[in-house]
Amino acid sequence: MKLVPLGDRVVIKQLVAEETTKSGIVLPGNSQEKPQQAEVIAVGPGKVVDGEKVEMQVKPGDQVIFSKYAGTEVKIDGEELMIVRQEDILAVVE
Amino acid sequence: MKLVPLGDRVVIKQLVAEETTKSGIVLPGNSQEKPQQAEVIAVGPGKVVDGEKVEMQVKPGDQVIFSKYAGTEVKIDGEELMIVRQEDILAVVE
Amino acid sequence: MKLVPLGDRVVIKQLVAEETTKSGIVLPGNSQEKPQQAEVIAVGPGKVVDGEKVEMQVKPGDQVIFSKYAGTEVKIDGEELMIVRQEDILAVVE
Amino acid sequence: MKLVPLGDRVVIKQLVAEETTKSGIVLPGNSQEKPQQAEVIAVGPGKVVDGEKVEMQVKPGDQVIFSKYAGTEVKIDGEELMIVRQEDILAVVE
Amino acid sequence: MKLVPLGDRVVIKQLVAEETTKSGIVLPGNSQEKPQQAEVIAVGPGKVVDGEKVEMQVKPGDQVIFSKYAGTEVKIDGEELMIVRQEDILAVVE
Amino acid sequence: MKLVPLGDRVVIKQLVAEETTKSGIVLPGNSQEKPQQAEVIAVGPGKVVDGEKVEMQVKPGDQVIFSKYAGTEVKIDGEELMIVRQEDILAVVE
Amino acid sequence: MKLVPLGDRVVIKQLVAEETTKSGIVLPGNSQEKPQQAEVIAVGPGKVVDGEKVEMQVKPGDQVIFSKYAGTEVKIDGEELMIVRQEDILAVVE
Repeated sequence: MKLVPLGDRVVIKQLVAEETTKSGIVLPGNSQEKPQQAEVIAVGPGKVVDGEKVEMQVKPGDQVIFSKYAGTEVKIDGEELMIVRQEDILAVVE
Repeated sequence: MKLVPLGDRVVIKQLVAEETTKSGIVLPGNSQEKPQQAEVIAVGPGKVVDGEKVEMQVKPGDQVIFSKYAGTEVKIDGEELMIVRQEDILAVVE
Repeated sequence: MKLVPLGDRVVIKQLVAEETTKSGIVLPGNSQEKPQQAEVIAVGPGKVVDGEKVEMQVKPGDQVIFSKYAGTEVKIDGEELMIVRQEDILAVVE
Repeated sequence: MKLVPLGDRVVIKQLVAEETTKSGIVLPGNSQEKPQQAEVIAVGPGKVVDGEKVEMQVKPGDQVIFSKYAGTEVKIDGEELMIVRQEDILAVVE
Repeated sequence: MKLVPLGDRVVIKQLVAEETTKSGIVLPGNSQEKPQQAEVIAVGPGKVVDGEKVEMQVKPGDQVIFSKYAGTEVKIDGEELMIVRQEDILAVVE
Repeated sequence: MKLVPLGDRVVIKQLVAEETTKSGIVLPGNSQEKPQQAEVIAVGPGKVVDGEKVEMQVKPGDQVIFSKYAGTEVKIDGEELMIVRQEDILAVVE
Repeated sequence: MKLVPLGDRVVIKQLVAEETTKSGIVLPGNSQEKPQQAEVIAVGPGKVVDGEKVEMQVKPGDQVIFSKYAGTEVKIDGEELMIVRQEDILAVVE
């Protein structure tokens, strides 16, 4: 199954942060606040706002920082993804 | 009876998720949170925003992900449907 | 007395749902949640938004689904009517 | 004293509903919820929105239905009037 | 000291309502709800909205009705004035 | 250190009101509600709204009345200043 | 790792205020309210609003005052940064 986003929406997959505590225990990502970093999975065609085409500025594979609380979580084939607006993507990590 | 949506509205029918618990009991969809996946039943003609025609990007039969809490539930001939704006459809599932 | 709606407003009359309980008692519509289905009684001339004329897409006699909580209830000659914006009409029932 | 409304505002005077209870007592309008029916007293010159002149569609003497909770009550020469926007007038009663 | 309002703002001075109670006592305006009637003291140059110049429709000396809760109270040389937007002036009293 | 405001922002410095109580004690401004009068310290270049350049209508040295609760307080070199939008300046005091 | 902001966003790094109490103890910045002064690290390409390109008015290295509560905190390589809109930058400190 594949998600094809509409308009200026972007499908992203949050990165799981692994962290080693001082005593050496590796905490899986789930026991911590989810990081706001994600990988872009799919990108919509963009949309027209005030007669101006909003071009998409991210592409699949980009590592991005997105706005906390933005977007909708969806579970596709057991995989947790998020669908956000491009507006909610703050920066690309290079 | 048939629903003909106005403007950029879309009539959808939520998919019922069946799930088998670990002990083998099948839970009917009603006992769980409703999934956000739906099938498109009917599509409005689109509408004009800021002098730009908003074309409809989904068609009857499409499997879509829609935004939680969006739309209005209606019961037509005993069948539960939802009427949402195209804006509330996040992605098409292919 | 006759109501002539202004702008993009529409005068509708909610349908009363009659329902027979399992024991055979007919409950009048008033004892239930009001249905969101209505008949269009009168239609305004439309209005201009962003320099585009909003044409009216419903006509007297149409059976429509309207958005819950929308509109204003008025009592004219003892008859309960509602005045809603065309925007609050979700679909026509055919 | 005379009120000359600015922009798209309209001065209206609420109608007092007289009602006879079943026992024959006439209740003056004040003891009931105020009706939403009013007579138009004065009409502003209209205003320009998005470069389009909003023409006034009501005139003094019109009987109108207006939106509950809309407008500002004013007392001029002991007479209770309301000033509403034309937008808050839902329909003309003919 | 003189107030020169910016944009579409208007400096007004609320009228003090004197009222004689039934027993003949004159209540100064302060002990009552402040009336919404005021005299225009100064008028701004107007402003541009959506490329249209908003002309000022009131002038110093006009008696006006203004919207309750609108505006900012200021005390200049011991005199209590209010600065409101022209939008908050509902009507001129003639 | 010098503040150069961006867009239509204005740096102002609130005036401290000195007041003599009836018993002759001078209360420093801090023990009272801060007055809404201020002196303009620096003015931004203006900004473009709906394709119209918003010109700045105040200049350094102007005494102005500004909207209560507007703006952001900043402390530069131990001096308390405020940064407000020109929109929040209600009038110039002459 | 490097953050490349999208649209009119700006990556900033808050300045840590060091302060010496009267008794001579130096309080590290963390024990106080964070100052609203920051250094610009990276600047987006700007964006189009109402058909007008919003040019970026700050550049990397600028010391700026930004609006309290604005923006999103991100941690990149252990460094705490913030991503704000240019709109939330109030002034440049020179």
